[in-house]
Amino acid sequence: MSDGNCQSNAVETPCAKKFKIDDQNGNGVNENQVELKNFVPTKILNNNTSKKIVSVLGNFEEKSGVGIVILEKKAFKEQDLSSEGYFSCDTKVHPFFQNDIYGNFECYPISSVNGVKTTTIFPATEKHISKYTKQEVHLILETPTCYNTLTLPHLQKEQFTLQWVYNILEGKSEQDRIVYNNTCETNGFVLVPDLKWDGLTKETLYLLAIVRQRDIKSIRELDERHLPLLKNIRDEGKKAILDKYNLPSSQLRIYLHYQPSFYHLHIHFTYIQHEAPGIYAEKSHLLDTVINNIEIMNDYYKKVTLPFTIREMDTLFNIYETNGYVKKIKADVIDK
Amino acid sequence: MSDGNCQSNAVETPCAKKFKIDDQNGNGVNENQVELKNFVPTKILNNNTSKKIVSVLGNFEEKSGVGIVILEKKAFKEQDLSSEGYFSCDTKVHPFFQNDIYGNFECYPISSVNGVKTTTIFPATEKHISKYTKQEVHLILETPTCYNTLTLPHLQKEQFTLQWVYNILEGKSEQDRIVYNNTCETNGFVLVPDLKWDGLTKETLYLLAIVRQRDIKSIRELDERHLPLLKNIRDEGKKAILDKYNLPSSQLRIYLHYQPSFYHLHIHFTYIQHEAPGIYAEKSHLLDTVINNIEIMNDYYKKVTLPFTIREMDTLFNIYETNGYVKKIKADVIDK
Repeated sequence: MSDGNCQSNAVETPCAKKFKIDDQNGNGVNENQVELKNFVPTKILNNNTSKKIVSVLGNFEEKSGVGIVILEKKAFKEQDLSSEGYFSCDTKVHPFFQNDIYGNFECYPISSVNGVKTTTIFPATEKHISKYTKQEVHLILETPTCYNTLTLPHLQKEQFTLQWVYNILEGKSEQDRIVYNNTCETNGFVLVPDLKWDGLTKETLYLLAIVRQRDIKSIRELDERHLPLLKNIRDEGKKAILDKYNLPSSQLRIYLHYQPSFYHLHIHFTYIQHEAPGIYAEKSHLLDTVINNIEIMNDYYKKVTLPFTIREMDTLFNIYETNGYVKKIKADVIDK
Repeated sequence: MSDGNCQSNAVETPCAKKFKIDDQNGNGVNENQVELKNFVPTKILNNNTSKKIVSVLGNFEEKSGVGIVILEKKAFKEQDLSSEGYFSCDTKVHPFFQNDIYGNFECYPISSVNGVKTTTIFPATEKHISKYTKQEVHLILETPTCYNTLTLPHLQKEQFTLQWVYNILEGKSEQDRIVYNNTCETNGFVLVPDLKWDGLTKETLYLLAIVRQRDIKSIRELDERHLPLLKNIRDEGKKAILDKYNLPSSQLRIYLHYQPSFYHLHIHFTYIQHEAPGIYAEKSHLLDTVINNIEIMNDYYKKVTLPFTIREMDTLFNIYETNGYVKKIKADVIDK
């Protein structure tokens, strides 16, 4: 769309002056400092149209090396929904249509309420570029044989460090963060706020239950021996969250990831309406369903084919690709 | 945050004139026409901070009755990521910090690239208000007994109209939209683009397979008799999508909803990286897992406890509440 008025924001100061990043936060000026107006984009690395975040690769004029700019539209702040903010008479409006009771516009609010969160990385390494580039993701169907011959040997070889988990369990770290503690070595667990959660906002509530048993890697290894543990986590976790955060259990999503991000059994608790990362059907398994599956059939998780998603850049992808289970996307397919 | 410069967008024209919605689209001016600057907000109905959409209830000055304004931040357009757009020298920058290679700012782009999608509803009815109000959602664990005594009688009583489904199956509607057609009355199905999909963009690919059998309500009724049908849908659906849209099957999420939005068996096909509505673990069941569960145990879906989410405003919620399975949230709990 075009709007003849939209270029009319007055430029009162010379361009260079406006863009000068002053040192008001007391940070020293350094040679990596860059200016947005000097950015020459070369490639869009990722454009998340749902969350409204874009990452762009490019160069900065008069600087050698590449940089990345990440732009993110911001959520609406409630205090800006007023006659001094979005409903100000300085808001410009471009109408699309008006039909009976419905009106459809594009509005251009005063800029103070319409900032865009901006992050620059300069110089950016290959690792930065890879991190901010849209990754091709594939779904793998892991049969029990695939698990034993491909996934498990990979996990054993990678030997992830779990010291941070043991530190929590042994009381050496994060003791002030513990929300609930069942100290039984077999059926006990620790409940802590996830690092992504601020510990306050109901809308983004996120806690993790970490089991005390140290030999359970993931849901693949669960059977009826673990039912008392799983039921403790479900029942005591629900009660602790109701007591501390006043959130009833019918509004909790309690689930396990497969593959998990670390191979020491842990269970996620989130508010049911929080769109937390990885809650999709191909990644998450509700604890109640896991318990029910084992009750229906003791060796369910030894027999079942478990789906998981994986990025082409991950080592495990290469293992499944080498064995003919999945193929890399060719560039011409991506661009179609 | 505050920025001394941010109020500097020039106002060249008197407020009333800027806000005048001219009739350039040829729509007649009607008495329901409203102006954003006259909106006096009274209540935030819903603020989706992840998708950056807010709905606000209020009044319009000099009008009786209530109205709703829905504001939505827009996704980044690739053509705006240029020196004429976000990286223009007219973009203002407010720095937060600069640390080594990382810079963190708020930027205020020229308004032409930073519009906000705006919808007004005036006058708004109770039904509109309810539609745009954040609904309390609960998770229900439906045992086979709950299904037979509570859910099923409710479905039979409600008698959803499925004529639109039969019109597609009988070739009376949407024939030009059919992507694939297996005409077998027992194991056949029709594959059509979902109405939410534009039919072109890979990133939002979404198709629906609708089975020809008319007596299967949902996954609850599936057993080994349906395996040939389910496998046809999986295998022929994957092939049709590869042929027509060049998307490999390892990048498809193929799944069923529980509860579904209509009780004639249908299967969703989406691009694995598309964050389609309802793909969460508490709502979606991957077709491969459904097939596998039935293969492991013929009567799995007759025995299993199935979770589903439900809004407090839904009739089925009342049925489960009356029977003591779930409780409404009290207002003081919501506000905490």
